[in-house]
Amino acid sequence: MDSKFLEGILNEVASGGMAPAEALEALKELPYQDIGVAKLDQHRNLRSGAAEVVFGQGKTPGQAAMIMERLAAANASIMCTRAGRDIFEAVSERLPEAVYHEQARIITVQRERPAIAGAPIAVVSAGTADLPVAEEAACTAEFYGSIVDRIYDVGVAGIHRLLDKTAQIRQADVVIAVAGMEGALASVIGGLVDRPVIAVPTSVGYGTGMGGVAALLAMLNSCSLGVSVMNIDNGFGAGYLAAMINRLAAGAGAL
Amino acid sequence: MDSKFLEGILNEVASGGMAPAEALEALKELPYQDIGVAKLDQHRNLRSGAAEVVFGQGKTPGQAAMIMERLAAANASIMCTRAGRDIFEAVSERLPEAVYHEQARIITVQRERPAIAGAPIAVVSAGTADLPVAEEAACTAEFYGSIVDRIYDVGVAGIHRLLDKTAQIRQADVVIAVAGMEGALASVIGGLVDRPVIAVPTSVGYGTGMGGVAALLAMLNSCSLGVSVMNIDNGFGAGYLAAMINRLAAGAGAL
Amino acid sequence: MDSKFLEGILNEVASGGMAPAEALEALKELPYQDIGVAKLDQHRNLRSGAAEVVFGQGKTPGQAAMIMERLAAANASIMCTRAGRDIFEAVSERLPEAVYHEQARIITVQRERPAIAGAPIAVVSAGTADLPVAEEAACTAEFYGSIVDRIYDVGVAGIHRLLDKTAQIRQADVVIAVAGMEGALASVIGGLVDRPVIAVPTSVGYGTGMGGVAALLAMLNSCSLGVSVMNIDNGFGAGYLAAMINRLAAGAGAL
Amino acid sequence: MDSKFLEGILNEVASGGMAPAEALEALKELPYQDIGVAKLDQHRNLRSGAAEVVFGQGKTPGQAAMIMERLAAANASIMCTRAGRDIFEAVSERLPEAVYHEQARIITVQRERPAIAGAPIAVVSAGTADLPVAEEAACTAEFYGSIVDRIYDVGVAGIHRLLDKTAQIRQADVVIAVAGMEGALASVIGGLVDRPVIAVPTSVGYGTGMGGVAALLAMLNSCSLGVSVMNIDNGFGAGYLAAMINRLAAGAGAL
Amino acid sequence: MDSKFLEGILNEVASGGMAPAEALEALKELPYQDIGVAKLDQHRNLRSGAAEVVFGQGKTPGQAAMIMERLAAANASIMCTRAGRDIFEAVSERLPEAVYHEQARIITVQRERPAIAGAPIAVVSAGTADLPVAEEAACTAEFYGSIVDRIYDVGVAGIHRLLDKTAQIRQADVVIAVAGMEGALASVIGGLVDRPVIAVPTSVGYGTGMGGVAALLAMLNSCSLGVSVMNIDNGFGAGYLAAMINRLAAGAGAL
Amino acid sequence: MDSKFLEGILNEVASGGMAPAEALEALKELPYQDIGVAKLDQHRNLRSGAAEVVFGQGKTPGQAAMIMERLAAANASIMCTRAGRDIFEAVSERLPEAVYHEQARIITVQRERPAIAGAPIAVVSAGTADLPVAEEAACTAEFYGSIVDRIYDVGVAGIHRLLDKTAQIRQADVVIAVAGMEGALASVIGGLVDRPVIAVPTSVGYGTGMGGVAALLAMLNSCSLGVSVMNIDNGFGAGYLAAMINRLAAGAGAL
Amino acid sequence: MDSKFLEGILNEVASGGMAPAEALEALKELPYQDIGVAKLDQHRNLRSGAAEVVFGQGKTPGQAAMIMERLAAANASIMCTRAGRDIFEAVSERLPEAVYHEQARIITVQRERPAIAGAPIAVVSAGTADLPVAEEAACTAEFYGSIVDRIYDVGVAGIHRLLDKTAQIRQADVVIAVAGMEGALASVIGGLVDRPVIAVPTSVGYGTGMGGVAALLAMLNSCSLGVSVMNIDNGFGAGYLAAMINRLAAGAGAL
Amino acid sequence: MDSKFLEGILNEVASGGMAPAEALEALKELPYQDIGVAKLDQHRNLRSGAAEVVFGQGKTPGQAAMIMERLAAANASIMCTRAGRDIFEAVSERLPEAVYHEQARIITVQRERPAIAGAPIAVVSAGTADLPVAEEAACTAEFYGSIVDRIYDVGVAGIHRLLDKTAQIRQADVVIAVAGMEGALASVIGGLVDRPVIAVPTSVGYGTGMGGVAALLAMLNSCSLGVSVMNIDNGFGAGYLAAMINRLAAGAGAL
Repeated sequence: MDSKFLEGILNEVASGGMAPAEALEALKELPYQDIGVAKLDQHRNLRSGAAEVVFGQGKTPGQAAMIMERLAAANASIMCTRAGRDIFEAVSERLPEAVYHEQARIITVQRERPAIAGAPIAVVSAGTADLPVAEEAACTAEFYGSIVDRIYDVGVAGIHRLLDKTAQIRQADVVIAVAGMEGALASVIGGLVDRPVIAVPTSVGYGTGMGGVAALLAMLNSCSLGVSVMNIDNGFGAGYLAAMINRLAAGAGAL
Repeated sequence: MDSKFLEGILNEVASGGMAPAEALEALKELPYQDIGVAKLDQHRNLRSGAAEVVFGQGKTPGQAAMIMERLAAANASIMCTRAGRDIFEAVSERLPEAVYHEQARIITVQRERPAIAGAPIAVVSAGTADLPVAEEAACTAEFYGSIVDRIYDVGVAGIHRLLDKTAQIRQADVVIAVAGMEGALASVIGGLVDRPVIAVPTSVGYGTGMGGVAALLAMLNSCSLGVSVMNIDNGFGAGYLAAMINRLAAGAGAL
Repeated sequence: MDSKFLEGILNEVASGGMAPAEALEALKELPYQDIGVAKLDQHRNLRSGAAEVVFGQGKTPGQAAMIMERLAAANASIMCTRAGRDIFEAVSERLPEAVYHEQARIITVQRERPAIAGAPIAVVSAGTADLPVAEEAACTAEFYGSIVDRIYDVGVAGIHRLLDKTAQIRQADVVIAVAGMEGALASVIGGLVDRPVIAVPTSVGYGTGMGGVAALLAMLNSCSLGVSVMNIDNGFGAGYLAAMINRLAAGAGAL
Repeated sequence: MDSKFLEGILNEVASGGMAPAEALEALKELPYQDIGVAKLDQHRNLRSGAAEVVFGQGKTPGQAAMIMERLAAANASIMCTRAGRDIFEAVSERLPEAVYHEQARIITVQRERPAIAGAPIAVVSAGTADLPVAEEAACTAEFYGSIVDRIYDVGVAGIHRLLDKTAQIRQADVVIAVAGMEGALASVIGGLVDRPVIAVPTSVGYGTGMGGVAALLAMLNSCSLGVSVMNIDNGFGAGYLAAMINRLAAGAGAL
Repeated sequence: MDSKFLEGILNEVASGGMAPAEALEALKELPYQDIGVAKLDQHRNLRSGAAEVVFGQGKTPGQAAMIMERLAAANASIMCTRAGRDIFEAVSERLPEAVYHEQARIITVQRERPAIAGAPIAVVSAGTADLPVAEEAACTAEFYGSIVDRIYDVGVAGIHRLLDKTAQIRQADVVIAVAGMEGALASVIGGLVDRPVIAVPTSVGYGTGMGGVAALLAMLNSCSLGVSVMNIDNGFGAGYLAAMINRLAAGAGAL
Repeated sequence: MDSKFLEGILNEVASGGMAPAEALEALKELPYQDIGVAKLDQHRNLRSGAAEVVFGQGKTPGQAAMIMERLAAANASIMCTRAGRDIFEAVSERLPEAVYHEQARIITVQRERPAIAGAPIAVVSAGTADLPVAEEAACTAEFYGSIVDRIYDVGVAGIHRLLDKTAQIRQADVVIAVAGMEGALASVIGGLVDRPVIAVPTSVGYGTGMGGVAALLAMLNSCSLGVSVMNIDNGFGAGYLAAMINRLAAGAGAL
Repeated sequence: MDSKFLEGILNEVASGGMAPAEALEALKELPYQDIGVAKLDQHRNLRSGAAEVVFGQGKTPGQAAMIMERLAAANASIMCTRAGRDIFEAVSERLPEAVYHEQARIITVQRERPAIAGAPIAVVSAGTADLPVAEEAACTAEFYGSIVDRIYDVGVAGIHRLLDKTAQIRQADVVIAVAGMEGALASVIGGLVDRPVIAVPTSVGYGTGMGGVAALLAMLNSCSLGVSVMNIDNGFGAGYLAAMINRLAAGAGAL
Repeated sequence: MDSKFLEGILNEVASGGMAPAEALEALKELPYQDIGVAKLDQHRNLRSGAAEVVFGQGKTPGQAAMIMERLAAANASIMCTRAGRDIFEAVSERLPEAVYHEQARIITVQRERPAIAGAPIAVVSAGTADLPVAEEAACTAEFYGSIVDRIYDVGVAGIHRLLDKTAQIRQADVVIAVAGMEGALASVIGGLVDRPVIAVPTSVGYGTGMGGVAALLAMLNSCSLGVSVMNIDNGFGAGYLAAMINRLAAGAGAL
C-alpha cells in the first residue's frame, strides 16, 4: 500500500467525510490482501502507482466499487477480475472511465497503458464454453501491454481447423491453450510450436470431467515439450505469466 | 465347458493316467472361470469347439501349460493373454503348434481361422511404450478373423504424422486408439473418422498419469463423437469388441 | 458451417434485418462450437445440410431458440439436447414444427429422416431414475435412423424380469445399457448377448455412488466381453455411437 | 488373556525354561493384540478356553509358530489366517495336530468343534481369482461351527450358471458373496434371496479396479435389499459375521 | 406388481375415471421401479399384498401421493422414505390413515403389522445431527415388525455415557450403529457386543468428512468383529437388514 | 447436563410455562449433543456452570435462540459458533447481554471470564478470505481466557511482510496458522518459531484447491517441526486447543 | 551448521585427511538438509552443540555412518530415525557409544540429556502393528527430555482395557495417540482427557485403509476437542511436538 | 528422423553390417517415438543434426546403448535421461565421449554446444532428496545452452537461508523451483521475483505426500503470480521449458 492511498483515507477522516470506524475497516480490508487484491509490486517499493488487481468474486457490488474507487485514486491502472455486470454497474457509477469486458468478466481502468513492442501472445481455446476463461487470459495480457491474437473454437475434434491456424499461432512468442473436457488442445499445440505453451484447464464438462480435473491431468501429462500448467479456470494467472514472458522476449524488463 | 473336454478328463482317469484327485482339481479349476478362462460362448451351447481364452497373468508356466493342453484337446482355437516367454516355453513343449506373439504377450493355437471379408480394423497407438497393449488388441482381433492395419507411434505431439495416415485410418470399419499419458489420441482420431473408435488408455506415464487414470479421464471426456472407452491396458477387450463390430459390418454373424 | 448459413446471415444484414454487431456475435457464437454445437460433419464438406446438434444446457431459452432457428434454415434436421420445457417453448415459437421429447429432454426438427434397414438397437435401463438418460440415448438413435427397442426398469435386483427379455434383447444389433447405483446391468447383459454393449453410467444414487463414479468403475471393470463405456450421463453419445454401429451392420454407410 | 496362559508362562519362568526378559516380551506381545491376535472374548470372562485367532501376515514363521504354540496351551481352538505354507510348516513342527487349509491360507487347531444345528451358510464367488478370499470366509465359518455350502465360479457374465444355483443358495440362512472386478454378484444374489447377504469385495482386477475399490463401491450401492459390505479381501470378517448370524438363526447363542 | 393393482387401474379406465394415456403413464411409472419403488417380493409371487416401499426423494408431492394411493389399494402396508412434510400433506389428503414420522422423514400406512416375538433391535447413534438417519433405520425396522430400542447421542467423545448403556445394548439381537464425522461408534460397539453390528455412516460433518466418506472408511476398517457396513445415509437399508436378521433369530421366517 | 438445567425445565413444566411435550423435546434435543452442543466437561462433574458451546450451523434462529437461552440459565459462559446475524438477532432478543463477533460468526455470553496470565497466542492468517476462520480461532481462544495477538494478511507471496512480524510471533506460547490455497504459511512459520504451531487449512480457493484439501495436504507434509493440523475450516477447534496449551504453559490447570 | 563442524572439516582438509573434493561434497551434503538432517535450531545461532537429527531412510549404512560421525563431533546429542539394524551396525563401528532402539528404529548418541521436570507424556497405541510408530514417538520425546509413559495395545475394540488406563493417561501433560485401521483411538482419548492429544495415523491395515488415509480422516474429523493430527506414520514429529508442549508446561523454555 | 540417420542404417544394410530384419527393427523402434525418443524438431525439417533425447527408464543398457550409438551418428548432440550407471557404462563402451551426470541420471554427448548469451536460469530446490530432479532440470537447461545457477537446500522451513539468496535468484531470467513434501518453495519464490517460475513437484515424502500430489496441489494453488507447474518429477521438461524462455529473453530464436 503506497502512502498516497493511506493519505487519502486520513484526509477523508480529517475532513469528516469518513468516520474513523469506516476508515479502520477500509484500512483493515484493503492493503496486502493477497487474494482480494493481488499485490503485484511487493518488492518494487520505489516505483509508484503500479497496477493493482482486485478479485471480484465473493464481493458485493458495493464493496468492489469502494475498493476500486480508492485504488483508482492511487494507481494509474486497476483491474477487477471475476466481476459480474452488477459489480461493473456499481463501479462505473464511481469511476465512469471504467471499461467492462463482458465475456472476460473483467473491469479495467487504465489511464496509461504499457506497450510491449514484440510478437503477439496467442490465446487458443477449444470450445465456446471455454470462452470466459480464454477472454480472462486475453484481457489480462492486454492490460499488461501484450498484443493478443485470439484463436477460438479450434478444439481437437475438428483438427483441421486448428491446423489451418498453425502459421498464425507460430507468430506468437507464447501461447495460452485453454480447454476443458479432455484438455487435448495443449498437447497438440505443444507439438506445433516451439514456444512456451501455458495450459489452462477449464471446469467445462460434466461427469468424469470432475470440474476440470480430467483436463488438468491431461495437460500435466502432455507428451509435448514446452507445456506448463495453471490451476483450473485460472485465466488471469495465465495472462499475467504470458505477458511476463512476452516482456522478457521483447527485452522490455519485468512487469 | 463342452462335453469333449469332460470326456477327455474322464478317459484319462479311467485309464489311470490321471488320479481322481487330480481330475477333481482340473475340473474345479478349468470350466467357467470368468477370469482365468474367458468363457466366450456361454449361450451358444449348440456350437462345438469354440475358441477359448486363458488369462496368463498370475499363473505359473506349468499351470498355464496344463490348462492350454487340455483346452487344445477340445477346441479348434485357443489363446493365452498376458503370457511371458516362460509360459510360452512351457506351453510349446506340450503344444508344438503354439505360436508366440512376443510384443502382444499372446500365445495362440489356431487350427482353423475365421476370416471376416470386410474392411480392416485400424489399431492406432501413440508411443512406443503403448505397443504391448496395441499389439494385444491387434493380435486378438486377428485371432477372431479381422484384418488389422497397424498404425503406430503417431502421438498427437507430432500431429502431422498422424494426419498423414488419415486416409489409411478412414479405410477401417472400426478404430482402436491406444494411448497413455494424456490420452489425446482418441479425441483427434474421433474427429477424423466417422466410424466407431474404441479408446484404450494405457498405464504408460508417471506422476500424475496415475497408472492410466489421466488417459482414461481424457478419453471418457472426449469431445469427439463415436468414442467409447475400455479399462486401462485392456487391449484384449478392445480387440474382441472391434472384431465383433467388424463381423457385424461384414454381415458375418456373431462371434 | 456450410455456406448457406453464412449466406443467410449476410442477407439479413444486407436487408437491415440484423445489425452488423449482431451478425458478428452470431458468427462468433455459432459455427464450430464443439460443445455448444456438435459439428458432426467436419470432414464431409461435400455433403450439404447435414444434421446439427445443439447442447441446450447452460443456454437461455432465447439463445437456444435463436441458434435453432438459424440452424434450421440450413439443415434438414436439427436436434437440441439437455433442453428443458422452457427452451422448447421458446424454440417452438420460432419453429412450430419442432417436437419435444420430454423425458429425453430433446427437441428435434426433422424434415427428412434417415432409415436404417436392419435390426433394432436395444436400450435397456435399470431403474426409473435412469429414464432421462435412457431416453436421451433412444431419441438420439432414432434421430439418426435406428429403430429402437426400449426395455426399461429391468435392474439386476430383479434378475428374472431382465432374463425374461433375453430373446428380445438378442434381436438387437447393439445394446445400450443404462444404469446408475452399482451399474451391474452392463455386465449381466454383456453375458447374455454377443453384440456390442455400450454402457452408460448415470449419476443416479447417493453417498458412495459419487455422482456416477461407482457405476462407471463397475462398467469399466465388467467381466463380460463386448462392453465399452461412455462418460457419466452421456446418453447422447451412446445413441450416436449405437446408430453408427447400426448403420455399419446394415451396410448403410457412415453417419 | 485368560489365567491359564499367564500361569503357563510364569511356570516356565519359574522352572528356568524361559528367561524373565523373554517372558516379558511374550507377555507384551501376546495378549490383547487387536490386530496380531483377534481377542474374541473380551467380555466373556467366565468362559475358559475360547477360540483365539492369529493374523499371520507380517509375522515370521518362527514368530507365528511360537504364538500358536502358546495359545494352543490355553485354548481348545486356535486359528491363524493369512498364513503361507512356510508358516504352516513352522507351526506343525510344534503343533503336529495343526491342519492347513491351503487355498484359504488358514491354519487351524481345533480339539472340539462347535456345531450349529441349522441351515447352512452359502459362500458364493464370482471367479477363480476370488477363491482365496472365498475360502478364507468358508473356513472361518466352519471353524465357528457353521455348515458351509460352497458355490464357486458363478460370475454374472454367465448369469445362467448362477441362476441354476438359486434353489441351493436359498437354502442358506445367510449368504457371503465374494467378487472382485465389477462386484455385481452381490446385487444379483441380493435380488434372488431374502436372507442377509454379506458382500466381500476382492482386490482381483487391474487398472480402474483400483485394488478392489470398484467392487467395493458397487456393493455399497447395491440396489438389492439385505446387502451389507466388508473391507476389501476381508474373508475372515465375513465368515465370522456369517457364523454369528447363523448361530442367532439356530438359537445357538452368541459366539 | 400384483394383479389387484393392474385390475384397479383398468377398472378406472373402464369407468372413465382415468384416461388411457394416464393409465399408460401410471403403468409405465409404477411397477418394477427398483429405485422409485423398492419391489420387495420379486420371488414371492404367491403371497399377496406384501409391503411396498416408495423412495420419496426427487418426487413431487403430487407424484408421491398418486403412487401411494394406488399402492395402498393393493397392499396391506406401504411406506414412503425420504419424504418431506409437503409430501406427507399431499399423501394424507388421499390416505387419511397415513402416519408421518417426522424425524425419520417416513410416511407409513400399515393396516396389519407383523410382530417379531424376540429380542429388540438396538439403534445407537452418535450425535444429534445423525438422528434423521437413525430414525429412518428405526422406523423401517418397526415397519417390518421389530421392537426397536433407541439409544441416541452416545458419541465416543463421551465414552462413559455409551458404556452406561452397555447392558441395554447387549439385550439386542442386532445393533445398528449410526455415526458421521469419524465414525468410531461402530468399532466401540463392535467390541462391546457379540451380535451383528450394522454400521451406517452419515454425511454429517464438514471439510475432510467428505460427505460421509471419512466415517465410511473408519467403519470398513473397524478392528472389531461382527461389523458390516451400509452406504452413506442408508438408514432404510440398515433397518430392513436388521429386521431380516431379527426375524431369523426369532425363527419368524423370511421377510 | 448439570442438574440446574434439568431443574429449570421441570419447574417450567410444573408452572405451566412449558408443555410436557415441549419439555420432552427440549430434553431430547439439548443434552449430550456432541455436535449440536460441544459438551466440554464430560468428566468434570463436580464443577458447576462450565462453559457450553453450541454449533449454530444448520439451526434455525429460533432453535438456536431457545437453546442459548436455556443454556444461559445454567452456565456462566456460553458460545455459539457458525452463527449468522439472523441467529444473533434471535438470540439477543432473549439474551440482551449476548455479544456478536461478526467476522468470527460467534455469539458469546460471558459473565465471568477466565484469564490466563501468560504469553499470548498468535493467530496468523494468509489472506483476506481466511479471516472468518482466523477470527473463529481468535475469539474462541479469548473466550477461554487467552490473550490473542492477531497477525493477518501475511501470506507467503509477500514473505517480507510475514518476516517483519517474526519478533511479534515469537512472543507467543503457541501459534495458529490459518491459510487456504497452497497452505504454505504453516511451514514458513514452523521454521520461524520453536513453539507449537496449530495449522488450520481453509476452504478458500478454487479448482484444484478442492475445498481446502490442497492446503490440508501441504500442512500435513510440512517439513517444519512442531506443526500439527486441524480439519478444514476448524477455527473453533484450533482456538480451543491453543487455549489448552496456553493454560498448560501458564500453569493454569486444565480447561 | 555451527562453526565447530565447519572447522572440523577444514582441519581434516588442512591435515590431508580429507581431499578438498570430499570436503566440498560433505559441505554440500550436510548442512541445512531439511529432509536429510532436520536442522532444529535455525534461529538459535548463539547456542552451540544443539541436537541434530538424521533421517536414515534412503541412506546407505555407509552414508548414514559418515554423517552421524561428523555430526557427533560437533553436537552433544544426535539421533538417526528410520534406521535399520544395518545402519546401526555401521554407525556403532564409528561411534561405539551409539544406542539402538530397535522397535523405534532410532539410533541415539546422547552425551548430555535434557530433563523436563514435569508431568509425563503418555504414548497410547491401538495395536501391535502400530508399535514402531509409537516407539518412534516415545524415543523422540525421551531424547528431548520428556518422561514417557507407554500404554500400548489398548485399541477401542476392547474399550475396557483402555478405560482401565484412564487415570494413568490423565496424569500426562500431553497424549500421543497412535492408531491405524479406523483410527478411533484419538477420539475416545480426546473425550477422556482435557490435555492436548496429538493423533498419529499409521499405515497399518489393508484394502480401504488406503495406507493410513482412513485413520487420518477419522482423526481429522474427531468429535473430541483438543485433538490435532500429524502426517501418516510421523512418530518423530509427534514426539518432538509433545516434548515441546511438555517443556512449555514445565516452564522449561523452548527446545 | 532426419535423412542422415536413415542413410546410415541403409548403408549398414547395404554393406552387410546390419541384417534387413535388424534394420527394420531399428527403424521401427527409433524414429518418432514420443516417449522413447523425444522428437524435438518435428516441424523444423530444414535444420539438420538437431539434438535428440532418449528416455532411459525401462530400457536395458544394451537397448539404450544401441539407440544412443545410432543417434550419435546423425546428431551433433544427444542426451539420455533417467539413465542409471549401468546404462552409462554400456553407452560409454560404444560412445567414449559420453559424459555421465550422476545426480541428474543424465548421459550427454555434445559435440557443439549452443550458448545463450543472457541471464542465467536459477534452479532452486528445497531438500537433499529433491536433488535428482533439480539436477535433471539443471543439466537439461545446460544441454540447451543456458547458464544455470544452482541454489539448493533452501527449503521454506529455514526461510532465512532462502532469503539470503534473493539477490542471486533475481539475477535469473527464469526460475525453476523444485520441491516435494508441502511444495511451498514455489509460492515463496514467486513472491520474491518478477520472472517466470516453473514449479516442479517431486515425489519426495511419505504418507499424505501421496507420491508428489500434495506438492503438486500446493504449486497449482500458489497465491504468487508467474508460477506454472510441471508433472511430478519432470525435471527434464522444466529444464527444456526454461531454456526455451531463456532463449526468447536473449533474442536467441527457438530451440
